[in-house]
Amino acid sequence: MKKIGIKKLVRSNVHSLKAYSAKEIPCKIKLDANESPYSAFSVQRSAFSVEKIFQTLNRYPDPEAKTLKGIIAKNIKLKPENILLGNGSDELIYYLITTFGGPVLYPVPTFSMYGIISQALGEKGIAIPLDKEFDLDFDRIFKAIKREKPKLIFLSSPNNPTGNCFSAERILKIIEASSFVTRHSSLVVVDEAYQPFSSEKGFLPLLKDYENLVIMRTLSKIGLAGLRVGFLIADTEIVSEVNKVRLPFNLNSFSQAVATEALKNKRTTKSYIKSIISERGRLFNKLAGINGIMPYPSEANFILFKVKNSDKVYQKLLKKGVLVRNMKGVVNGCLRVTVGTKNENDSFLKALKEVIK
Amino acid sequence: MKKIGIKKLVRSNVHSLKAYSAKEIPCKIKLDANESPYSAFSVQRSAFSVEKIFQTLNRYPDPEAKTLKGIIAKNIKLKPENILLGNGSDELIYYLITTFGGPVLYPVPTFSMYGIISQALGEKGIAIPLDKEFDLDFDRIFKAIKREKPKLIFLSSPNNPTGNCFSAERILKIIEASSFVTRHSSLVVVDEAYQPFSSEKGFLPLLKDYENLVIMRTLSKIGLAGLRVGFLIADTEIVSEVNKVRLPFNLNSFSQAVATEALKNKRTTKSYIKSIISERGRLFNKLAGINGIMPYPSEANFILFKVKNSDKVYQKLLKKGVLVRNMKGVVNGCLRVTVGTKNENDSFLKALKEVIK
Repeated sequence: MKKIGIKKLVRSNVHSLKAYSAKEIPCKIKLDANESPYSAFSVQRSAFSVEKIFQTLNRYPDPEAKTLKGIIAKNIKLKPENILLGNGSDELIYYLITTFGGPVLYPVPTFSMYGIISQALGEKGIAIPLDKEFDLDFDRIFKAIKREKPKLIFLSSPNNPTGNCFSAERILKIIEASSFVTRHSSLVVVDEAYQPFSSEKGFLPLLKDYENLVIMRTLSKIGLAGLRVGFLIADTEIVSEVNKVRLPFNLNSFSQAVATEALKNKRTTKSYIKSIISERGRLFNKLAGINGIMPYPSEANFILFKVKNSDKVYQKLLKKGVLVRNMKGVVNGCLRVTVGTKNENDSFLKALKEVIK
Repeated sequence: MKKIGIKKLVRSNVHSLKAYSAKEIPCKIKLDANESPYSAFSVQRSAFSVEKIFQTLNRYPDPEAKTLKGIIAKNIKLKPENILLGNGSDELIYYLITTFGGPVLYPVPTFSMYGIISQALGEKGIAIPLDKEFDLDFDRIFKAIKREKPKLIFLSSPNNPTGNCFSAERILKIIEASSFVTRHSSLVVVDEAYQPFSSEKGFLPLLKDYENLVIMRTLSKIGLAGLRVGFLIADTEIVSEVNKVRLPFNLNSFSQAVATEALKNKRTTKSYIKSIISERGRLFNKLAGINGIMPYPSEANFILFKVKNSDKVYQKLLKKGVLVRNMKGVVNGCLRVTVGTKNENDSFLKALKEVIK
């Protein structure tokens, strides 16, 4: 084969991008990916007709996912026209940036996909460091809005990996700064992936007041990560524009059907969330009681904690079969542990104590 | 709410885009979407552990879809590193254009998504009309390559909606023109969505000779449209670059598992394909025998046919419960009918005869 040189053909922003590292790390106890320890579908399964899905797999999925959208709309008391469904929130970030372009502003540390997808799509990412309390640095963000005129601002609250909710007042000031205060308008996307675990209400009630507010939610953290269902909630005009760049069959038949059933049976999901929140409290107290460990308060389903020699602790935990996330390069000296079942958390605590002795 | 004017914020290429029309048209016999009449999973289902999928829906899918990729690689006698999986081929088109940019060249009429996704991503689409035999007009394409320097050329063969395979010799000349003959290099993507129904071998055997050749395949036409699984086959360097813009969890757990099972049991799928090819022959002969109908020969799972007053015929068929695709604005005066089961095809033929009387 005569080589033509593929690399020359690739856009420079893509060529310099690193592929998402997806190596599988063998472990007994998996507490690295902020998944729920409970499948939101293991209980209600019997009520659900799998047979019918299999029989109609030859047909394309409903491109509008009407049934699923209807249930979500009902749950949040809005219209289906306020909702756009994605193959996970990742896809919605892709679509938002495709629709509105950049620059794209976000605080750091935060969910990595805002920056990665901006680069993949050739848009400038503007990363503004959080303040010492892991809260939004309003002054720096305000200046950046005026200077850089971002089209999109992504705020993950509760924030991953820090676990805290950003100050609602500061988020509000950013929303206002991006609509009325400065001459430039931006959309502010509040990513509420972890909202179900938070004591705060979230920003849904403010949608009616702010045209430039977009909210993202997902089923991935509440027991259905394998389905890939995220949704965006916004003004109908925003939804209608973003819908133009959506691939018509982005949500497969199975995910539509199972997500619909899961959302119908909210009771199980809610009881799982309750037990995760309660375990989070217990885990936090236990961590805080260990000499040399400093956990950060969390409104999400994971806890970030500081520990000396974090790299070594990470490796030693893994040797004992417990996989957590090493936040090296993101929040140096910190590890992030997902709240698991009581047994999983106990195994993690036991291993951690042994490891840092 | 004080309006900030969302439309001003939307990129102009997106704002002028029309959303994919997805209204559901009620019908008894659905022959409009080139689906298989048989679910490729209705038979083997019992061998397949649904329970396990449900139990692990709380976990993220394998981002590398190793098992599924392994089976595909084995089937086509290539390495997993030659394969990239997409949430349908649609997503692969998105990723290819994101990676390499435009201009994007394609013949018309053809599969509409090449043009739609180009526009969504803000890239110029160059549409070159097919010749009178619905084959590629090499001279015009060659001139366009030199003039426009496209980064990507999409060739659907068998072509939708015309049904024919493009001349293999002309495709080859285009691949060569896009690598060695002109000074400019383009990737040539041969979309073989309908290849399983074709008497020709397709372009897989040529991959080793041409670095700029990319092949797309899909499970959507062979009984699994509901799963959304498409795949791209190319040089490892191309796959590795496109993989950088892929969302890590683009293929959900269920689709991975069911596609794997379906590809293990190739016998059923093959027998369905055989019966569709045989029905296509029968349907073609019957259509050719009807006064006022001119069907075009097809290497795919559908037949394009010319009929007087095509709009009226379309509507009247629908009144009788038979949904076909009206190709108005694409191939004027033509309708496209998907090959269904023998019964479905007979009902369609009966309705058509009554309608054009």
